[in-house]
Parts: sequence; C-alpha cells; structure tokens
Amino acid sequence: MATATITPVDLSKAFRLINHGPTTLVSARHEGVDNVMAASWVCALDYAPPKLTVVLDKMARTRELIEKSGQFVIQVPTVAQIALTHHAGTHSLHTDPEKMTHPAIRVFKMPGTDMPFIEGCAGWLACKVIPEPHNQSTYDLFIGEITGAWADSRIFSNGRWKFDSADPAWRSLHYIAGGQFYATGEGMTIGGQEMP
Amino acid sequence: MATATITPVDLSKAFRLINHGPTTLVSARHEGVDNVMAASWVCALDYAPPKLTVVLDKMARTRELIEKSGQFVIQVPTVAQIALTHHAGTHSLHTDPEKMTHPAIRVFKMPGTDMPFIEGCAGWLACKVIPEPHNQSTYDLFIGEITGAWADSRIFSNGRWKFDSADPAWRSLHYIAGGQFYATGEGMTIGGQEMP
Repeated sequence: MATATITPVDLSKAFRLINHGPTTLVSARHEGVDNVMAASWVCALDYAPPKLTVVLDKMARTRELIEKSGQFVIQVPTVAQIALTHHAGTHSLHTDPEKMTHPAIRVFKMPGTDMPFIEGCAGWLACKVIPEPHNQSTYDLFIGEITGAWADSRIFSNGRWKFDSADPAWRSLHYIAGGQFYATGEGMTIGGQEMP
Repeated sequence: MATATITPVDLSKAFRLINHGPTTLVSARHEGVDNVMAASWVCALDYAPPKLTVVLDKMARTRELIEKSGQFVIQVPTVAQIALTHHAGTHSLHTDPEKMTHPAIRVFKMPGTDMPFIEGCAGWLACKVIPEPHNQSTYDLFIGEITGAWADSRIFSNGRWKFDSADPAWRSLHYIAGGQFYATGEGMTIGGQEMP
C-alpha cells in the first residue's frame, strides 16, 4: 500500500481525530488472531496524556483480543469505507471465521507497533488499556491511553481536518441505527477563542 | 415558547439522539442556580436501561450543580445555535455571573422535571447520575441513566433524524477545536441489517 501520506499526529492533538464523534473501527491482535469491529461508542476522555473510552460488548471477539493483549487501534473510516464499516459491524468472527478475508479489509503494519491497522482510514490511534475491571465488567466500558496517532495527510494535516477541500469520499461516518449513517458535513468557525 | 413540536422519544431509541457524536449542551440546576456548558465528550453507554457518559472538568460550575443535584440534561444544539454553543463553551459561571443572561439562552420547564431545558435544541435527554466516585475523581467521567427523552419533531420523529429533508439550520454540530465545528452532513444507508 502507499504509506507516503500517513503522517504522525502530535499526541496533544490526537483527540481531534475523534472529537467530532465519528463512527470508528476497533482492531486488535492476540496470538496471531486479528479482528476488527465497528464502534460508535468511542469518546475522548483526556488531553494529556490523551485517553479515550470505548464500549465493547461481551459478545465481541475483538474485546477478548483486547483483554488478552492489553492494546487496540481506534481508526476513523471514511465514506469510501462504508461497506467495510457495515461489514465489520454486522459480522462476528465468532460465527464468521472468514470475516477478515472481506476484500475491503486490508491490514498493514505501523512501524513500532504489533497491531492490525486497517488500510484506507483517515486516522489511527494506538491505545493501551488502562485496566479498570469494575467499568469493564459492569458497563463494558474500557479506558485506553493513546500512545500513538497518525492521519492520512490528504484529509488531516497540521492538526486540522480538510473536509471542506478534500474529496467527499474522505469524509468520516456518523452511525445512527439500521444501516443509517451521516457523513461529516460543512465546516463552520466561530470566534477566535479556544473552547476547552 | 412553542412547545407543540416537542415530542417524547421512546427510551429504547434515546441513544439515537447522540449516536452520531454531536457536540452537546449540558445543563443542571441546584438550589435556584442554573447553568449550561458545552460538551463534546458525551457518548452513549447502554441501550436498556439507556445510559451515557459525560466528561465534566473539575473547573466546571455545571459539574458542581450535577454533583449536588444528582441530575442533568444533555441536549443537542443546532447550527442555528452555534453562537449559544460557543458562548456556553467559553464562559464560566464562576467568572461571568451574567453567563445565563445571554439572549440566546432561554430556559424552559419540561413537565415532570426540575432542570433547566434549553429552548431551540433538536433533542433533550434527562439523566440521573449513577454514582461512580472513582471515575468521577480520577477521570472526570460521569455516568448517567437516561430517564426521559424528547426531540423537536421538525428534525427528529418516529425514531429518525430528518437532516436530509429539514432546513440545514436544524443540523447538529460536531466540534473539533479552536472554534471549528462541522455540521452533520449527507445521509447514507447501507444494507438491510441492523448494526448493533
């Protein structure tokens, strides 16, 4: 794959990859098994060190891989990846052992990591689980520290999304229910003051 | 205000008001003090009973009101409310006692509740804090059970958003940083299968 456009994102700006609430892909690897699932319930939690939360159902095979390996990748899929995202959200590796052979799912290696990164996404956040057994068992809620962040410079560079100037196929996805998504829309700026 | 278009949302579908990751307004009341803040870090947590998470900085006066009253409202502001949303996100009641007198902030009473609901939003979720002191003190992370949900039927009805047919001023907002928002964009549907 062409990796020339994959660019590190400063950790202080990593939250910007998910602050607008996109639907994500969560991937993980353990003992040679890779999996990826779709997750809308992913949210920034802190700036420094950057953290996020993700809700992982007990039925999800990806959750098992995360619990065993202690790490995962959150990636921001694009409009061009809507079929992949829907496939990842509606098929379980438990019942469909061929899930990862879907032609749109191509995994690549991010140097310095040992997790399955999904090709073609807008951004990637490598995360390390901060163990919180009560949250995990009671609420299916996992906390991750973001240890690395990257974006495709065709859609995010210098800490900024380029949705208004890039090809609309690069827009991120926002899932509702029943196969219904919205793309990220028009940009609008107000004031000169940073909102915390 | 005209309340004829404010319609209850079935609790089983309440998550759909925030599943696409909009920036929200969080409001609360305690002993006659009302406040509202902007929050991007709000996320669905469960379907039944419906729950959500919200990150509330220790500096936020709204957090004090929530800790004391045990309840809060999450509302989904619209493009028409971008100035209100930015104002709520950049002014603190601690240092600006006149914050709530901003002409765009109009509070109304939702029957059966005693919290400040903000006029003109697309949807409202009444929440009761599920006390989790460790999460609250360590991560500023609060869990709320959604006890009531309403939407303006001009933009959400029968469990569905109407972004594609309604006036674009009704679109929800997705905050990034530095005064930069994106509106919710184009709708797209895939497959016939419900994605969990």
